[in-house]
Amino acid sequence: MPKEWNIRDAYVKNSKGERVIDFHRSNLHVVNYSIPVYRRMPLAELKNHLFTLPNHPDWIPYRTSYYKESWGFCLTDRQLAALKDEEYLVCIDSTLAPGHLSYGEYLLPGETGVEVLISCHACHPSLCNDNLSGIALAVQLARRLQVMRRRNSYRFLFVPGTIGAITWLALNEDKLRSIKHGLVLTGVGDSGLLHYKKSRRSTAEIDRAAAHVLKHSGKLHHILEFSPYGYDERQYCSPGIDLAVGRLSRAPHGTYPEYHTSADNLEFVHAEKLGEVFAVCLDILSILESNATFRNLNPKCEPQLGKRGLYRTIGGQANADISEMAMLWVLNQSDGKNSLLDIAERSEIRFDSVQNAAYALEEHRLLRRERESIPVAAY
Amino acid sequence: MPKEWNIRDAYVKNSKGERVIDFHRSNLHVVNYSIPVYRRMPLAELKNHLFTLPNHPDWIPYRTSYYKESWGFCLTDRQLAALKDEEYLVCIDSTLAPGHLSYGEYLLPGETGVEVLISCHACHPSLCNDNLSGIALAVQLARRLQVMRRRNSYRFLFVPGTIGAITWLALNEDKLRSIKHGLVLTGVGDSGLLHYKKSRRSTAEIDRAAAHVLKHSGKLHHILEFSPYGYDERQYCSPGIDLAVGRLSRAPHGTYPEYHTSADNLEFVHAEKLGEVFAVCLDILSILESNATFRNLNPKCEPQLGKRGLYRTIGGQANADISEMAMLWVLNQSDGKNSLLDIAERSEIRFDSVQNAAYALEEHRLLRRERESIPVAAY
Amino acid sequence: MPKEWNIRDAYVKNSKGERVIDFHRSNLHVVNYSIPVYRRMPLAELKNHLFTLPNHPDWIPYRTSYYKESWGFCLTDRQLAALKDEEYLVCIDSTLAPGHLSYGEYLLPGETGVEVLISCHACHPSLCNDNLSGIALAVQLARRLQVMRRRNSYRFLFVPGTIGAITWLALNEDKLRSIKHGLVLTGVGDSGLLHYKKSRRSTAEIDRAAAHVLKHSGKLHHILEFSPYGYDERQYCSPGIDLAVGRLSRAPHGTYPEYHTSADNLEFVHAEKLGEVFAVCLDILSILESNATFRNLNPKCEPQLGKRGLYRTIGGQANADISEMAMLWVLNQSDGKNSLLDIAERSEIRFDSVQNAAYALEEHRLLRRERESIPVAAY
Repeated sequence: MPKEWNIRDAYVKNSKGERVIDFHRSNLHVVNYSIPVYRRMPLAELKNHLFTLPNHPDWIPYRTSYYKESWGFCLTDRQLAALKDEEYLVCIDSTLAPGHLSYGEYLLPGETGVEVLISCHACHPSLCNDNLSGIALAVQLARRLQVMRRRNSYRFLFVPGTIGAITWLALNEDKLRSIKHGLVLTGVGDSGLLHYKKSRRSTAEIDRAAAHVLKHSGKLHHILEFSPYGYDERQYCSPGIDLAVGRLSRAPHGTYPEYHTSADNLEFVHAEKLGEVFAVCLDILSILESNATFRNLNPKCEPQLGKRGLYRTIGGQANADISEMAMLWVLNQSDGKNSLLDIAERSEIRFDSVQNAAYALEEHRLLRRERESIPVAAY
Repeated sequence: MPKEWNIRDAYVKNSKGERVIDFHRSNLHVVNYSIPVYRRMPLAELKNHLFTLPNHPDWIPYRTSYYKESWGFCLTDRQLAALKDEEYLVCIDSTLAPGHLSYGEYLLPGETGVEVLISCHACHPSLCNDNLSGIALAVQLARRLQVMRRRNSYRFLFVPGTIGAITWLALNEDKLRSIKHGLVLTGVGDSGLLHYKKSRRSTAEIDRAAAHVLKHSGKLHHILEFSPYGYDERQYCSPGIDLAVGRLSRAPHGTYPEYHTSADNLEFVHAEKLGEVFAVCLDILSILESNATFRNLNPKCEPQLGKRGLYRTIGGQANADISEMAMLWVLNQSDGKNSLLDIAERSEIRFDSVQNAAYALEEHRLLRRERESIPVAAY
Repeated sequence: MPKEWNIRDAYVKNSKGERVIDFHRSNLHVVNYSIPVYRRMPLAELKNHLFTLPNHPDWIPYRTSYYKESWGFCLTDRQLAALKDEEYLVCIDSTLAPGHLSYGEYLLPGETGVEVLISCHACHPSLCNDNLSGIALAVQLARRLQVMRRRNSYRFLFVPGTIGAITWLALNEDKLRSIKHGLVLTGVGDSGLLHYKKSRRSTAEIDRAAAHVLKHSGKLHHILEFSPYGYDERQYCSPGIDLAVGRLSRAPHGTYPEYHTSADNLEFVHAEKLGEVFAVCLDILSILESNATFRNLNPKCEPQLGKRGLYRTIGGQANADISEMAMLWVLNQSDGKNSLLDIAERSEIRFDSVQNAAYALEEHRLLRRERESIPVAAY
């Protein structure tokens, strides 16, 4: 566990005493976790501690040095070019000392003991898409879920990346058994395609629900196979933890030039893009809430749907409509083994149509919910 | 169970007493299952009971109202346009009363207790492809099978769609255990591509045999996944019945404009198209008759085929011919686990070549039929 | 078992006593296994025993008649055209008598009882790619393996095709249990694409190792499904033997016109092409030597790699490099079930990078080799 880092001020002053790099203008100017420094040095020596982006001369990079004692400044390439060959006063007024790791946790209890983990990282100050967007989305999800009837419990984690997730997992091993599904939310406000990255298990219910929702979303998207690189899914999917946690993002980290620079700001993030991911999240969570297995109570041949008002009555037209097809699929597949999500996948009909069909059939006593399938919240 | 419907006459007479719609010209003119009517009414009221096809002004649609008490007439759009705004006498001389459901059943016994179900619907009077073609094909199949040695038994059902299949299944539950394979035959005379729709089980022997035959048929075709819509496979594949019944068709129902209209007539159906499906059927049934598992009696290395006259003797040419390849495949795969159909699938060689190879090898005592594989009829 | 064939001389003399076909100019001139002949005959009769390649008038075909008593000559089509219509003296001074079957066998013992079989055929005199190239490659492999530390034993067979493999298998049934992997090497010097033909089992470790090496080789290649035609894999993969033996070749036999003709000579074979196959072979064998299963000793979340010098220390850049990714994959997947080859396949990272990552992690006591995974030779 590394020490706690705090910083009050940091600057580089030129020979006239002007702050040519100033932490108070942007906290990206200091390499995060820099050790304290107060020293004069020539430009040549200072340059060993400066980071810029030559290809984007107006952007400040974001750099960290969590695990090696070191210090440095990040600045725009134009700032660097303007530095004269003279002596500079370098100051980083930071402290590294035993302290605390802070994180946020919020539990919304549901009717059952099943938990859904929603995790986002809160450790990239001043970065908007790669930090704040996930936090904002998680907060909005929590607000919406608060006012809904919930079958599942929802545990929201706002943690510093890596170390926060590791700490939470170490302190909460007893809670892991209840976590049946999970999502890491990160980088959800840019204009890139929707991406879902599968959990290590790769065929967990969350993986299938996310793939189903994206397939029927009408949006371009990619499903990514699991890999052990990325955000905190790395920890949740480590072999000794192995939770069914996937990741929802737009453009994957590192695929856009603004990533980890001062250009990842409020202009880079768009409300309607956040809104799209919000809607996808709700649809995924809705499947996790509502998925259940039913049994056809009339399994030998089809029951008469028309006389129950479930089917149009003038025959001879070519095709059933989608709600009729959904009913036929639910009846045909509900042998006690196939869940509504199984049926939605096989039929290629949206989950909510399948679910509505099941509820209508249940109401007419043509289906019975299997005992292990707990009553479902109205989403 | 609905009442039995009988009809003697039906017409609409204009003010001059002329039959402007007349059941005796085409029985499609009456909505099937119409309740009796004898009443005068103005055109405006009558129109609520008239069905036409505006896009095909010379065709009469086919409509039914099995499950809702109702009445109506079907007519060409030109007929409708010619109706003057006057009063009409409407007569449907039908009866709806307790009665009987009639269906045809024909069993051709075979050497074993295994049954193949061949089902077609007989409930669309005056429609040719979507009714009569399946009946005609089933009758021809029965005639051909009568004169063959049969390992399997063949049960032919000529039933009104849906209700006939449901009735037969309800009355014959004890017979279902013997039914190992089945085919619904319908819409087999049009000029569309060949279509095989898989059973609910999707990998049953009938599904694999049909896919194999179509693949090697040299004809364009589609294999359709199972869905719970269509013809009587809906009943045979309901979850409490779940027979291995697929469906063989040409153009799927509802995909051609003539479907369920007076244009589905003798001109729409072609002898050579029926003949193609007949040949495909026989090939599928032949696989079901002949599929068996053999054991290589010389499993350690290849036996000498040349000295047995099974292989050409001047070596050095590049390739074995197909019958030689079939023998090598049968020898290699006949470890007691792979059936001839398994071997045909893996080798991509036609089943009949594989079968011939097995018989030649059996004759030379290089193969032994596994006990559970019953003697095979010469097809 | 056929008789042993020996030949001292063979010729066809014209009326002037000139040898118009002469075994001493090319041993391809005699159909292999020809019975002795000494007789005069007219051209018309002789022609029944002559084989040429009309499409390649300067090439001599290669023909055999192992299993039918027969005789014949192979010659160029130009030679045939030059033969006058006169009487010829035909002489084949051969013997067919009880004798011996000769083959070469060379065993390189390793540290464990596990054997790798390397087999090539030695029965096509004067043919270069389809005979000599496999022998040459096997010899070079043996030389290289001699000077390496070996976990596996290597058994090299140089056998006449078919009959040699059958004989060896019949005499060595007790050794088959130790043979865990095998390769038939043949036709490895031409300019065609690399081909690996899978074993009958199709998912054996050798099949997966070969596919992995070819995928990462940067060379165009094809993976062929198993079929019971080809070289001695036919015998090694017969159902009663069923060894995990695949075949490595360049252009498959019979796909190039030079096949089984005098044009399959030293000019047809290229050193760099042989070298490519040699390198592929070593890579495949290296996987078989080194594949092992490890267990992550720190399975709950990721260990700190940076402080162990296994990971760069300045954070914020977009991507891990390949050695870092390999370490993350090994840590993530080493739950005691996945081998290094499993991990290489899932991660799509080259086996050697995965292996190096595992060794580095093992050195830092982050991994433990599972007991059944035997110590690995340094390749």
